[in-house]
Amino acid sequence: MLAATERFVREPLMPREQEVEETDRVPDAIIEAMKAQGYFGLSIAQEYGGSGLSAEQQARFQMILSLSSPAFRYVYSSNLGIGSRAISLDGTDAQKAEFLPRLATGELVGAFALTEPGAGSDAGSLSTRAERQGGDYVFNGTKRFITNATRADVFTVMVRTDASQPGAAGVSAFIVDRNSPGLTVGKPEKKMGHRSSQIADVVFDNVRVPAERLIGGEEGRGFRTAMKTLDHGRINIAAMGVGMAQRLLDEAVAYAGERRQFGRAIIDFQLVQAMLADSEVDIQAARAMTLAAARQIDTARSALKEAAAAKYFSSEMLCRVADRAVQVFGGAGYVADYPVERMYRDARLLRLYEGTSQILQIVIARAIGSERGLRVA
Amino acid sequence: MLAATERFVREPLMPREQEVEETDRVPDAIIEAMKAQGYFGLSIAQEYGGSGLSAEQQARFQMILSLSSPAFRYVYSSNLGIGSRAISLDGTDAQKAEFLPRLATGELVGAFALTEPGAGSDAGSLSTRAERQGGDYVFNGTKRFITNATRADVFTVMVRTDASQPGAAGVSAFIVDRNSPGLTVGKPEKKMGHRSSQIADVVFDNVRVPAERLIGGEEGRGFRTAMKTLDHGRINIAAMGVGMAQRLLDEAVAYAGERRQFGRAIIDFQLVQAMLADSEVDIQAARAMTLAAARQIDTARSALKEAAAAKYFSSEMLCRVADRAVQVFGGAGYVADYPVERMYRDARLLRLYEGTSQILQIVIARAIGSERGLRVA
Amino acid sequence: MLAATERFVREPLMPREQEVEETDRVPDAIIEAMKAQGYFGLSIAQEYGGSGLSAEQQARFQMILSLSSPAFRYVYSSNLGIGSRAISLDGTDAQKAEFLPRLATGELVGAFALTEPGAGSDAGSLSTRAERQGGDYVFNGTKRFITNATRADVFTVMVRTDASQPGAAGVSAFIVDRNSPGLTVGKPEKKMGHRSSQIADVVFDNVRVPAERLIGGEEGRGFRTAMKTLDHGRINIAAMGVGMAQRLLDEAVAYAGERRQFGRAIIDFQLVQAMLADSEVDIQAARAMTLAAARQIDTARSALKEAAAAKYFSSEMLCRVADRAVQVFGGAGYVADYPVERMYRDARLLRLYEGTSQILQIVIARAIGSERGLRVA
Amino acid sequence: MLAATERFVREPLMPREQEVEETDRVPDAIIEAMKAQGYFGLSIAQEYGGSGLSAEQQARFQMILSLSSPAFRYVYSSNLGIGSRAISLDGTDAQKAEFLPRLATGELVGAFALTEPGAGSDAGSLSTRAERQGGDYVFNGTKRFITNATRADVFTVMVRTDASQPGAAGVSAFIVDRNSPGLTVGKPEKKMGHRSSQIADVVFDNVRVPAERLIGGEEGRGFRTAMKTLDHGRINIAAMGVGMAQRLLDEAVAYAGERRQFGRAIIDFQLVQAMLADSEVDIQAARAMTLAAARQIDTARSALKEAAAAKYFSSEMLCRVADRAVQVFGGAGYVADYPVERMYRDARLLRLYEGTSQILQIVIARAIGSERGLRVA
Repeated sequence: MLAATERFVREPLMPREQEVEETDRVPDAIIEAMKAQGYFGLSIAQEYGGSGLSAEQQARFQMILSLSSPAFRYVYSSNLGIGSRAISLDGTDAQKAEFLPRLATGELVGAFALTEPGAGSDAGSLSTRAERQGGDYVFNGTKRFITNATRADVFTVMVRTDASQPGAAGVSAFIVDRNSPGLTVGKPEKKMGHRSSQIADVVFDNVRVPAERLIGGEEGRGFRTAMKTLDHGRINIAAMGVGMAQRLLDEAVAYAGERRQFGRAIIDFQLVQAMLADSEVDIQAARAMTLAAARQIDTARSALKEAAAAKYFSSEMLCRVADRAVQVFGGAGYVADYPVERMYRDARLLRLYEGTSQILQIVIARAIGSERGLRVA
Repeated sequence: MLAATERFVREPLMPREQEVEETDRVPDAIIEAMKAQGYFGLSIAQEYGGSGLSAEQQARFQMILSLSSPAFRYVYSSNLGIGSRAISLDGTDAQKAEFLPRLATGELVGAFALTEPGAGSDAGSLSTRAERQGGDYVFNGTKRFITNATRADVFTVMVRTDASQPGAAGVSAFIVDRNSPGLTVGKPEKKMGHRSSQIADVVFDNVRVPAERLIGGEEGRGFRTAMKTLDHGRINIAAMGVGMAQRLLDEAVAYAGERRQFGRAIIDFQLVQAMLADSEVDIQAARAMTLAAARQIDTARSALKEAAAAKYFSSEMLCRVADRAVQVFGGAGYVADYPVERMYRDARLLRLYEGTSQILQIVIARAIGSERGLRVA
Repeated sequence: MLAATERFVREPLMPREQEVEETDRVPDAIIEAMKAQGYFGLSIAQEYGGSGLSAEQQARFQMILSLSSPAFRYVYSSNLGIGSRAISLDGTDAQKAEFLPRLATGELVGAFALTEPGAGSDAGSLSTRAERQGGDYVFNGTKRFITNATRADVFTVMVRTDASQPGAAGVSAFIVDRNSPGLTVGKPEKKMGHRSSQIADVVFDNVRVPAERLIGGEEGRGFRTAMKTLDHGRINIAAMGVGMAQRLLDEAVAYAGERRQFGRAIIDFQLVQAMLADSEVDIQAARAMTLAAARQIDTARSALKEAAAAKYFSSEMLCRVADRAVQVFGGAGYVADYPVERMYRDARLLRLYEGTSQILQIVIARAIGSERGLRVA
Repeated sequence: MLAATERFVREPLMPREQEVEETDRVPDAIIEAMKAQGYFGLSIAQEYGGSGLSAEQQARFQMILSLSSPAFRYVYSSNLGIGSRAISLDGTDAQKAEFLPRLATGELVGAFALTEPGAGSDAGSLSTRAERQGGDYVFNGTKRFITNATRADVFTVMVRTDASQPGAAGVSAFIVDRNSPGLTVGKPEKKMGHRSSQIADVVFDNVRVPAERLIGGEEGRGFRTAMKTLDHGRINIAAMGVGMAQRLLDEAVAYAGERRQFGRAIIDFQLVQAMLADSEVDIQAARAMTLAAARQIDTARSALKEAAAAKYFSSEMLCRVADRAVQVFGGAGYVADYPVERMYRDARLLRLYEGTSQILQIVIARAIGSERGLRVA
């Protein structure tokens, strides 16, 4: 499958990157082609019509696909399954049967709604609330920076169902239909990069959600569901970082082999060689540790620490690689004629979402401490 | 003067930054106000109608002005006098008398044309050539990435007047009128940042330039003129980096004092404190060394090493500070609602122009070696 | 004076560095020569027999002296006056008259005793206590990592005089005679570097200190005295870092000019050039900001932020420079034939004492916040 | 086997580290115990009495063993088989049969002699020469920084057999008996760390080596043999770095959990957490990429790039981890009471030997280029 993916990346994806950047949307033909390739169901079990890839396989796929613009990645599902993952992980059989097949084909697009204006890194302090009223829950509140918000058909939404529980314990996860009365999606944010991926607010104003849309059928488990979903999401972002970095290195090596200064190709200069070598080394490290984290999640052990570490390392690595690529290009790296200018802007997001680098440092430190029986504040 | 400049930065500049970003141009009212403030003549001697500021005073001015968008800086003269500096430094009295007064008032805008498609870092290998024909020189060739090209009235152009001298020795500097037949300015580049500053090619197709426009009246001295001009230019970029970084820190501290997570302002978290402290320290270092380099140039000693060091350190420092500011803002740092998103993109250029960081490393290493009697390849 | 100091560094100091390293002591002849040069009284006012150097002059002196081993620096007074500074800053006239003249000549050696086993970074939580009993205070407790402890004649000791005040408010500073009954000095620590400088515990077991040795004659002001002393001490460490780094760079450039590989002096390789250039730039930055901090303290403004920033930057810078010097030497940098091996070990301490880098980050962040009216936790 | 190794590390190795540091030698009882464990033959094929571990298994073993002092590692064979590897890789059957069984039991100790005073990084320019005289080769020249030189019974020596070939093509590898007349071993170097490992010159003064000791029986292949040996050696150093770093992190976490400041264990402070987390992440990355490189060598594909990358990343990583560990310990990290002081000094060597980081950058850059059909100077 990876060879086929690589061909798909070379054609049709790469040739249309610039068009996506300028038009701020992925052409319908590409979306249809991705459906035909089965990309929407990669992480969904075969019994529900997906490919049922292991985490390692998904990571390998993502590393290839991300050789092209991340724009294409947002299409087939928000963050390689972050839009369907919660259902796969913790949904009831009925929820799985209802949603997964249509998510697998791309008939439905999912999105994951956790962050709020006042709860970014502090995911446990959500203030969007859902009150039980008869057979429904009534949602009020605002979710912020929701990827694919404008395009999603169903949202996995984390809300506070128990106001008496201020922390993670009072949070539940729901599947919410985009057409629910009272649900509105805000204007997409103007961003530094990641054109065509749309990030917007999702506002709930007395939105009624049937109780059977409570994921797993039980209140108070939403935070755990979200965290498990993020473990997968973080490995996928790490893999994405590897692919993007590899592309940036490929571009930089090609340019360094062509561009001449002082009578030589600039790849002949040690300072250029050092930048290329450091990027190569960075990528090898990120690739190996991401695959190791994915294998760990595949063995059903907790991969909290490893997923956080892979995402943290890979996203930081990507920004170093992007920075070096711009530097290899020199002034040309600052103009939009070459993809490195775009990719430099795209890269920066990865250190911010699904846990900033700083939050991940804390997550990892706590895991280190707790492995050794230390309680870390 | 610095207090007045700071007031001018607060009003009218800062409130119009976003407008400049969106419209890609500086409003005429601002340009006129800058003329009224005398900003166009800061580096020009008083006898020619300028303010005759010392390099240190110019650096202090630049540090203040760059608290606002670099867009405004490109207006009053390409790179604080890089457009007029060569005339000030090495022009004949007649050349000074003809051009400096009008550059000082802003009646004329100057630009500095050194870089070529095949000669970026390798400034000695220019291929734009000027052949003597009677009382004129005939120019052919292309200059690339010329700041203010679309707006300039006169260019300082480095060309090869002696084809038999392949290196720096064959280069001369000229003042070239923008309206010269055969001179065309290309389409401005689409860039990562620095909106409203226009960078474009300048193409010479049999452009006739009168011999009296040869700066200093003597062939073969253009490379030295360019290098001295760059010494000043580098100190000014270093100063610009200090101002931009200070603004980014100001924005980050303000945001960190307001933004709350986990029940506290995020400035209460050590990881945020460390980012702010590191930026403060970086800025102090860059400010001090930039002023020291400027004082050195004011004492008429060579400041090649110090100017290169200040530009290199300050531009790298700026990118670190910008990166931390985005990180302090978290996801908000990636959207265009706050100036840090724009400033992050603006910052990146400073490590690329007027000598990439890599070129400056070599320049500095050679200076270190030659101080000790070592010839460094 | 700086030229004379530089001569003194070249001869007799530099030639005896290796001997000091091996014997773990500075020869008496050197100590006498330093007394003759007046080095013991540099920071002491002229009216008390010192040179009365400004902070800037002291920093410039320190930058020169530290071109040689830091071993020599510890001789003439713990940390350029940290042993006498508290008396100079806050002593009564009688205390100044009694101690400063003999400290200035080197008849007495002073030391500064703040740190405790349980109070390193947390200087406000001292547990060494002094109880008033008649005309004396009775000291009990232990001070740790006290530089020059084995050599000092008088200690400036910060103790808790008011047990009801747990924080900084209950702390007072005293001058304590080394021969006081009950005062014992521990065995010097075996350290990574800084041979000949002796760091040891100072233990107080019912040591009686006359009340007239309370610095400034007033209880509760000791923490402030200590903090002001540290401001000076930090600038001096910053200056020391600049000198040490300059020496390391000098050694590295000289070696790079001689050592040949692949048929060329290794200074001809860009990767070596980049290391040398980065060290040069680092040193310029640290020098300029240290002198700026010193000038600020000389104008009697608070330099808390600037002194902390200079010490933090300079010590981190020094370790980078030392690391690069070892790398330039290659395997030779790991063996004791060249001074870089020793200096690499010496350098490491500067990021640890008189405030670790982490503590200084917090100090600086709080200063940044408080300048803007923010209270930072 | 790894569990048994870990037990061996806990007891007897760890408790005797300090003794080894102070006495500068590994106790005989430990050496005998290592022989009994079969450590001398790990990399030697089973048919010659070794364990025949794969490269991946060797790397995993090394990661465990290096939780204790590297001193123990040098005992059982210079660099996990670097002393026997050339024979294993390229020896004739007779050479294997003669030497490997005795190397596997520890009866013989091997060492690897490549570096020379004038040929460190530039391994192709060896000047030690061997001239054919009858059935012997006569060696003259000096090898420098040879690990285990004082202890080795047999050396793998790279020499120039063809003076007309100045580069790598003229180099051959030999097995040389330590007792050969004319072979002298110099005084061990005084080093920054790695006590008990002895690094010394090996001088050849008309040393006669029988022709049947030419590895592989063919001249001109020595450089290739050396490079393949280094591929293995680099992976083992990378693995060693992982183990050492893990130990440093373990020490730092334990200390951070105990040491209290400001009323809390210091692990509760974010700046300490960030240092621990960054080390954890660094170690995960290095471990994963080192194992990936080892698996690649096990599949008989060239692992030149991957081995160089793993060694480069892991050694740089180790120094970062060691530096953070010292910083977590604060002043205590600078004194010899805790192992971090020693390990900080030990760590520094790994970036210098078997290819400095700078040389490895070039090696990697060339590999990147040549994969893409670019010839890189």
